[in-house]
Amino acid sequence: MSIHSREQVGQLIDGKAIARALTEQIGQEVTSFIGQGNPLPGLAVVLVGNDPASEVYVKNKAIQTHRAGMRSFMHMLPESTTQDELLDLIEQLNANPRIHGILVQLPLPRQIDPVVVTNAIAPHKDVDGLGEVNAGRLALGTEGIVPCTPLGCLMLLKSVHQDLTGKHAVVIGASNLVGKPMAQLLLKENCTVSVGHIHTKDVRGLAREGDLLVVATGKHGLVRGDWIKPGATVIDVGITRVPTPEGRTRLVGDVAFDEAVKVAGHITPVPGGVGPMTIACLLHNTLQAAKVTQKIIRGSDVG
Amino acid sequence: MSIHSREQVGQLIDGKAIARALTEQIGQEVTSFIGQGNPLPGLAVVLVGNDPASEVYVKNKAIQTHRAGMRSFMHMLPESTTQDELLDLIEQLNANPRIHGILVQLPLPRQIDPVVVTNAIAPHKDVDGLGEVNAGRLALGTEGIVPCTPLGCLMLLKSVHQDLTGKHAVVIGASNLVGKPMAQLLLKENCTVSVGHIHTKDVRGLAREGDLLVVATGKHGLVRGDWIKPGATVIDVGITRVPTPEGRTRLVGDVAFDEAVKVAGHITPVPGGVGPMTIACLLHNTLQAAKVTQKIIRGSDVG
Repeated sequence: MSIHSREQVGQLIDGKAIARALTEQIGQEVTSFIGQGNPLPGLAVVLVGNDPASEVYVKNKAIQTHRAGMRSFMHMLPESTTQDELLDLIEQLNANPRIHGILVQLPLPRQIDPVVVTNAIAPHKDVDGLGEVNAGRLALGTEGIVPCTPLGCLMLLKSVHQDLTGKHAVVIGASNLVGKPMAQLLLKENCTVSVGHIHTKDVRGLAREGDLLVVATGKHGLVRGDWIKPGATVIDVGITRVPTPEGRTRLVGDVAFDEAVKVAGHITPVPGGVGPMTIACLLHNTLQAAKVTQKIIRGSDVG
Repeated sequence: MSIHSREQVGQLIDGKAIARALTEQIGQEVTSFIGQGNPLPGLAVVLVGNDPASEVYVKNKAIQTHRAGMRSFMHMLPESTTQDELLDLIEQLNANPRIHGILVQLPLPRQIDPVVVTNAIAPHKDVDGLGEVNAGRLALGTEGIVPCTPLGCLMLLKSVHQDLTGKHAVVIGASNLVGKPMAQLLLKENCTVSVGHIHTKDVRGLAREGDLLVVATGKHGLVRGDWIKPGATVIDVGITRVPTPEGRTRLVGDVAFDEAVKVAGHITPVPGGVGPMTIACLLHNTLQAAKVTQKIIRGSDVG
């Protein structure tokens, strides 16, 4: 025994390893799916314009899809694409039996309404889960496609806790992409759920109530050590590139990691936490979509 | 000044009066809507089976619709109706231009899946707002039809507070009918939102955090005086008939009113609180649906 008390250190949740295991499992399921006489699951990724960050994301998605044994279709459209042109493409992809998942990379150029485009994707091919039908299915607790990032966060939480029932989950950030679907998912897991955001008066006090704390605000370093309930499980969705004193840059999350790790029971690092899960969940959703589509083709009423 | 401190009494939120004012306003809007050359808004109410309580509800809805100057269509089907027969009727009602709102009274007989039936109603005619498309629109914060009871609760809250931004709203009960859509609505109003339910460990402690407290559990008398933050606004959605010591019956809510009224700033009575608002909101939704349908007919892309 040491005389000096050792600093408490939360355990890292290794998103990279968990995502790798999930991706491997998906690869095996794809093999078995094809072995049963089903077609290769196919994901169509649509990029409009030349945003460099989006180009990187889209390329990574295509590579990962291919590595998981699925077929990847890329559609790179010029910045000047009209909404009607994009809707025409989506209609073709909806009708194409080789394509089971459709993803339109956001953001879109100004002349295109992302809500209209997202809702034009057939619900059973909406592998981002961002359309109104899938949002409704999540809200009502029926079967649907769950947005990738909150789904990944849930998997990370479940890597720590087998059963989330009765835990107080606090979600900071109320976006359609993460915070709101995350809250729905956690309700479905029988958590008590609180959602805080920019208008919350005592967000620190709220955060401190969380046995589970999911942070998705885009404000790097927002959540300090004293925002965290001792022993809580902390999922940091934020990822921002910031300059270092040495004149370089590094990626940081919404949680002040060095402080938080001393208080939390389990915590995701940034990078290497939620990030790798998002793309693994996209593959997961694509395979699920392929399974549902095959059921529809066989005459089931799912869809 | 009295020597004895007067017992603190929360102000009553008079749902009956607010519903009456809303119904009158809807009546005027209907008149003006027709005056602009639009057809009479029409609500089709479908009842399957002979549940006496449902018969009373359905009759009341028809009478109120008629009183608000709208057209009411009743479809009473036998208990033995098959799901396909009901879906056929809904298809006809979806296609009928004289019908702007469709309501299928729940519960349905066992042979019929309420989820399939609810989702078969065209989203722009789903005046109960219970289908997946409207649930998704509510979740995403886009325009849609909001379920009547939570919409009524929101109107009652807004009769007390013009702006709900930053208030901590606690919802007890997480049903698809009330608790979950209520939470979404309150998030849209920029409230910090917490949802508690049967699995919540310290529901009393959670309830006490609420500047706004909405209770919809169906457990009469659950919420005691010491569950309420002093000065909070309390909305009691519950309504249960219980026997009195005199051998009669009376209606009570989920909140122990006599205790709560001493702590709350504002509180709804039961009956005469949320109940009258639900039916007024159905009329509101029917008129809104008629307005949207007319826009669709005129070639707008709403719907």
